[in-house]
Amino acid sequence: MPVKKSVQKLEPYTPGEQPKAKDVVKLNTNENPYPPSPACAKVLENFDPDRLRRYPDPEFGELREALAKMCGAKAENVFVGNGSDEILSLAARAFVEDDESIGSLDPSYSLYKTLAAIRDVEWKGFGLKPSAAQVPGDVALFLWTNPNAPTGEFAEPKTVAAFARRFKGVVIVDEAYADFARGDCMSLATSPRNRNVIVMRTFSKSFSLAGLRVGWCVGPENLIEALYKVKDSYNVDAVAQAVALAAVKDAKWMRANVRKVVATRKRFVAELERRGWDVIPSEANFVFARPAHARAAEIFERLRGRHIYVRYFTGPKTADRLRVTIGTDAQMKRLLDALAELDK
Amino acid sequence: MPVKKSVQKLEPYTPGEQPKAKDVVKLNTNENPYPPSPACAKVLENFDPDRLRRYPDPEFGELREALAKMCGAKAENVFVGNGSDEILSLAARAFVEDDESIGSLDPSYSLYKTLAAIRDVEWKGFGLKPSAAQVPGDVALFLWTNPNAPTGEFAEPKTVAAFARRFKGVVIVDEAYADFARGDCMSLATSPRNRNVIVMRTFSKSFSLAGLRVGWCVGPENLIEALYKVKDSYNVDAVAQAVALAAVKDAKWMRANVRKVVATRKRFVAELERRGWDVIPSEANFVFARPAHARAAEIFERLRGRHIYVRYFTGPKTADRLRVTIGTDAQMKRLLDALAELDK
Repeated sequence: MPVKKSVQKLEPYTPGEQPKAKDVVKLNTNENPYPPSPACAKVLENFDPDRLRRYPDPEFGELREALAKMCGAKAENVFVGNGSDEILSLAARAFVEDDESIGSLDPSYSLYKTLAAIRDVEWKGFGLKPSAAQVPGDVALFLWTNPNAPTGEFAEPKTVAAFARRFKGVVIVDEAYADFARGDCMSLATSPRNRNVIVMRTFSKSFSLAGLRVGWCVGPENLIEALYKVKDSYNVDAVAQAVALAAVKDAKWMRANVRKVVATRKRFVAELERRGWDVIPSEANFVFARPAHARAAEIFERLRGRHIYVRYFTGPKTADRLRVTIGTDAQMKRLLDALAELDK
Repeated sequence: MPVKKSVQKLEPYTPGEQPKAKDVVKLNTNENPYPPSPACAKVLENFDPDRLRRYPDPEFGELREALAKMCGAKAENVFVGNGSDEILSLAARAFVEDDESIGSLDPSYSLYKTLAAIRDVEWKGFGLKPSAAQVPGDVALFLWTNPNAPTGEFAEPKTVAAFARRFKGVVIVDEAYADFARGDCMSLATSPRNRNVIVMRTFSKSFSLAGLRVGWCVGPENLIEALYKVKDSYNVDAVAQAVALAAVKDAKWMRANVRKVVATRKRFVAELERRGWDVIPSEANFVFARPAHARAAEIFERLRGRHIYVRYFTGPKTADRLRVTIGTDAQMKRLLDALAELDK
């Protein structure tokens, strides 16, 4: 058979819908409602066509230096991927033997299961408060999303540190949403004693650059080197490198957007709670909430009928809630108004 | 050990040097010396920042349609990757079991060996005129570069077709250089009887977009589906999709550049032969040539000292030749002048 057996059986990951209509309220894939730094648009406007013609820097030197500086790391400890999805996929190739497995929180980012299936190894879930003692020896890579998705919960860095100290394999702390949280684990990754923690970030959320596909991570030099060894020669294109660099240099802009999103989140959560919804305390740019009256699946469908997209996950641990991205205040008002009408 | 054993042993692929100085004559990585269609620069200039903020189309619908039309295929038969390197890596995951192996011409694109090592399977080389009878049953994926690199030789489509008919696994015809050749194998991929041929192309060479990282391929629907299953959710960014689309819509521009490169190649080969070099007949945008007097390695180093970069491959089948990318007439003159001086 030309197609690998495990791939024939594979259930592909389903990303959130990307509706093409312009009038939709899109609160389903945790995009930032505010545009990226104007410096990003300027880079595109002035991009030298000669850089399109030539291969990009295979080691993304300038971007790597700027990220290292921002994170308090050395350039040797930084790796950049075609989205953090690519980093996950490379980590599965670099850190997991064929007879080992991949662990994560549960429920968490649903891609992780698919990632293990593509790598043809087992995925194991360990709830939301895993202890290293509980994780069997064949788990070579543990993906700890912090703040977690879809729950939005934040684990204290000392909790993650205690886990990593006792864990033999590699821990990737997936900090896609860390800029929206009250803390982060970067100091675990940059510590000179660090042997197994990689902290991963992305330009897709706080930096408003989901369209660009750039993620990066910080970790011990031998692990970063292994990622370099298994990557494609030129995995991050020249335009993405240049635009991401401009975004890093204007991180103030990102932080101002984050403050707006966090303020909106606070107001939105208060209103949902006033209406009797159960909202898990969120440190991300989304909330995971259980409706007061109707079923989550039903609300999801009825909102969709009104061109308001939120995210619904089937499965025993997630099916009673909706994950709602924090948009602008105007978007949240449209959602809240629609919810009020559905309740009538 | 946190790093996979096979990765610890892995010799990473070394891409050609990307010197940063501006005054170099860069004839080492088969880039197009002419810029991409002005429509590409226009797309960058006018890019809507809102498309940076949102995730790209995970199935690259518009680009896929345009490529299908250009290749005489259906959209279902087209896949797009973050460079054709990514397609190769996905194919190794989708079509090769852990106990199978990857075959290719030999000598050929040196990445293939690394690709097999990353996939942790064996690589097997079969010379430049492989017959299916000669290929053992464990070879599940055969990479046939046509025109071949670094030799530049073109295999007739009927030769490739005869091989594929008798071969049980998947044949990827890597046509990175096909636009510079007198023919191609696309009709094998679009034939309704095709069960195992994927023809792969790239925007990096003829379309002058190496900086962008976009490759695509055409093949039977079940194989294309398998590639979709194992790819990252959003593997081609929004800017790359838009710029590549503009390039496809202005394919005339690409063809005009190709005609210039082919004319320069003809003149350059004639001059090398006049000087006693042995040049393999090339159908690509480079030539693979054996110097008349001095050793290839020595010429390579001495040219480098003069900021003229060509490519040198060690190894018994390649070490007596240089691979020289066809640049502008002015660049080739600088190279020829430098070679004449070295001979003094």
